[in-house]
Amino acid sequence: MTHAFVAALALVLLGMSGPSRAADTALPNAAPDAEASDPRALGWMQDFPPPPDKRLSAADGSFFRFPALRWSVVHMREFLPTVEVSRGLGAPVPLPVALDGAIDAIRFTPTGARAPMTWKASLAANYTDGLVVLHRGRVVYEFYAGELREDRSHAAMSVTKSLTGTLAAMLAAEGMIDPAAPVTRYVPELAGSAFADARVRDVMDMTTCLRYSEDYADPAAEIWEYAKASNPLPQPGAEVVGTAAYLRTLQPEPGCRVGEAFAYKTPNADVLGWIVARASGTSVATLLSERIWRRMGMEQAGYFQVDATGMPVAGGGFSSGLRDMARFGQLLLDGGSWKGEQLIPRAVVEDIRKGGSRAAFARSGHPGLAGWSYRDMWWVTHNAHGAFAARGVHGQTVYIDPKAEMVIVRFASHPQAANAANDATSLPAYQALADHLLSREGK
Amino acid sequence: MTHAFVAALALVLLGMSGPSRAADTALPNAAPDAEASDPRALGWMQDFPPPPDKRLSAADGSFFRFPALRWSVVHMREFLPTVEVSRGLGAPVPLPVALDGAIDAIRFTPTGARAPMTWKASLAANYTDGLVVLHRGRVVYEFYAGELREDRSHAAMSVTKSLTGTLAAMLAAEGMIDPAAPVTRYVPELAGSAFADARVRDVMDMTTCLRYSEDYADPAAEIWEYAKASNPLPQPGAEVVGTAAYLRTLQPEPGCRVGEAFAYKTPNADVLGWIVARASGTSVATLLSERIWRRMGMEQAGYFQVDATGMPVAGGGFSSGLRDMARFGQLLLDGGSWKGEQLIPRAVVEDIRKGGSRAAFARSGHPGLAGWSYRDMWWVTHNAHGAFAARGVHGQTVYIDPKAEMVIVRFASHPQAANAANDATSLPAYQALADHLLSREGK
Repeated sequence: MTHAFVAALALVLLGMSGPSRAADTALPNAAPDAEASDPRALGWMQDFPPPPDKRLSAADGSFFRFPALRWSVVHMREFLPTVEVSRGLGAPVPLPVALDGAIDAIRFTPTGARAPMTWKASLAANYTDGLVVLHRGRVVYEFYAGELREDRSHAAMSVTKSLTGTLAAMLAAEGMIDPAAPVTRYVPELAGSAFADARVRDVMDMTTCLRYSEDYADPAAEIWEYAKASNPLPQPGAEVVGTAAYLRTLQPEPGCRVGEAFAYKTPNADVLGWIVARASGTSVATLLSERIWRRMGMEQAGYFQVDATGMPVAGGGFSSGLRDMARFGQLLLDGGSWKGEQLIPRAVVEDIRKGGSRAAFARSGHPGLAGWSYRDMWWVTHNAHGAFAARGVHGQTVYIDPKAEMVIVRFASHPQAANAANDATSLPAYQALADHLLSREGK
Repeated sequence: MTHAFVAALALVLLGMSGPSRAADTALPNAAPDAEASDPRALGWMQDFPPPPDKRLSAADGSFFRFPALRWSVVHMREFLPTVEVSRGLGAPVPLPVALDGAIDAIRFTPTGARAPMTWKASLAANYTDGLVVLHRGRVVYEFYAGELREDRSHAAMSVTKSLTGTLAAMLAAEGMIDPAAPVTRYVPELAGSAFADARVRDVMDMTTCLRYSEDYADPAAEIWEYAKASNPLPQPGAEVVGTAAYLRTLQPEPGCRVGEAFAYKTPNADVLGWIVARASGTSVATLLSERIWRRMGMEQAGYFQVDATGMPVAGGGFSSGLRDMARFGQLLLDGGSWKGEQLIPRAVVEDIRKGGSRAAFARSGHPGLAGWSYRDMWWVTHNAHGAFAARGVHGQTVYIDPKAEMVIVRFASHPQAANAANDATSLPAYQALADHLLSREGK
């Protein structure tokens, strides 16, 4: 396989996230801005066949190079095999709308900057493809750009992990998974791997000890084998490895003690998806449909990318509509209750909000996220508003602020994968918006 | 590429249909019956990873070998890249239901048989995965088996051609396509190919002259190059050819005169999809969504398989829900009108119903379909009821009987591709059902 292909797979299939990544050193220093990189203007994949310089492919990795990825994040299924997350056949339940025209003018100061920026300007600065804000369950702000529309889906990247983590926590609350049990109780095949010494809780909170590097500058980094194993497009005649088989080969990080330090490594999410599948007797895709997507009046089916063995990519392969993801965020904000039905046990939401070990997180070296923790595959800010978030590369987020009763979902296609590139112009913006919503209530 | 892979691609991507095919000589003589081949019992693609003998893949062709294909026809997107045919975001419009419990017991005599068969028995005999009957727009019969459910989608195979043909006829009625114009007016790239001498009408009615064989016993048959070019899963680094580029290479059949004889060859449907795309400025997938799928209260989005250049497989790549396909059939039965809106010009439906040249059809050698014709990619029976149909391999059909005001949609996974294998136990059954519906009205 070509390097470009594997690199693209690594980015897309594994859906890494996190505040800083060696990979970003290889990314453009002076990428075209949001307007200059607008996929509508650049004409990707138009006409048949598209002109060679406008044709994108998973096979050569072209579909996930900036700026082409701005087109592809809204068209993932056109490149890769996928499995539906059915919404069922009922009528969508509209979200109430009460737009707040004052939001665009909200000013905030980006982290490390001196000059303020408006909310509106932050959208372009962050290559935002779509953003919706719910306040008390009502749509107060909604924005689309690039290829996204209200009736299309966008790659959620590692936001997927928080869906997987929530499903696992739900099964735990129901007694179908014991977080204190060894991983091998559910997946005996992982005996002999780095997961043999881990409890399910370590996987849920990423405090395992994996010798696993996503350093793209290192040809020996484990990411390459991972990407090859997860390849959903195996060459005819080539052996199909599959994600599950690869996970069995992961070895422990020398000197690391399980449970002590948070280490953001995507294979944990794949293993958690595997545990969920074994415990529930179905896949994360079907379970997400049965438990959430069929139950909330979603507007569109979602979908997961699958590997060559049909395994949904639980660590980064989900795509959905913007407002549907906001419905999911609202469900978390509302303690798991939706229109009187307790879809997620309240204890699960409380556990996520309470967060994980801040000491374990501090050992992980995320300087931009001081004081945060990671629990059930959610990022917990421990700020004064008790905000917590799902986060994915290139700027995907579900940001939930309980004090402000606010849910923000942003889909984006930032040229840099790591969220460190957009946190400075988004996290303070979210805080300013929360303060605005509180102040208009006189709080 | 392996032979198995290309053969599977040929079957799946090109979605051939027709009453007799050399390919079938290679298919099982004594396949397990519907019960023994039930995909729910055979356990395909369960758990992660599935056991090797239960794992299906497009790369090795295993996914489309009987009996595994019985699973795969309901899971096409899990193997191949696809593009959505959006239903929009509105509420589905339920079909009224008035089930007729007498239908299962209807008896008919299969073609060439002496003993009668019941309607119910015909379903298993034809490996039916789903069948719905509308009478005067109401569901009088509905059946699911195998992997199909009311909230899943099934491969429509060459039924897709009739969707493409209908879209083309709509554009023709609106003056956006001139059926009398040469194909090259819309697709200049086809100069130098067998299509250079053809009018659009010849493509719509498959009276072109293509040197194109789907004889699987012949290693020189054009089907192999076609399948390779249409491969949506190119090997990394391999040149992407694409369907469009392949179509340019097709050469004329020596001694054939354009317009004289019907010859059922799938590349015509691809070319028609290309013409539709050029004339409308969009793809058949988007056009089908805008003109039909968003307009009829469909229950589910449909989808097209795409080739490596993103081109929807207009000749056989569509999948949809059973009842949604029935809504489309009802639209044709009702002269293109749906709840007071004229979605398809009435003249288009009348042109289809009137049919094509029966003399041209008679020259094609379809002994089981004597007296039929082919128009706008629909099969027209010219029987006493004026029935016409969309047909796809392995038993897919949309059968519309105007006199009985009846629409039948059947999705199936017959071990033999050619519909000759199931026509004997389905066409007389449809006639008997039509007579039943007429007789209960006292007609």
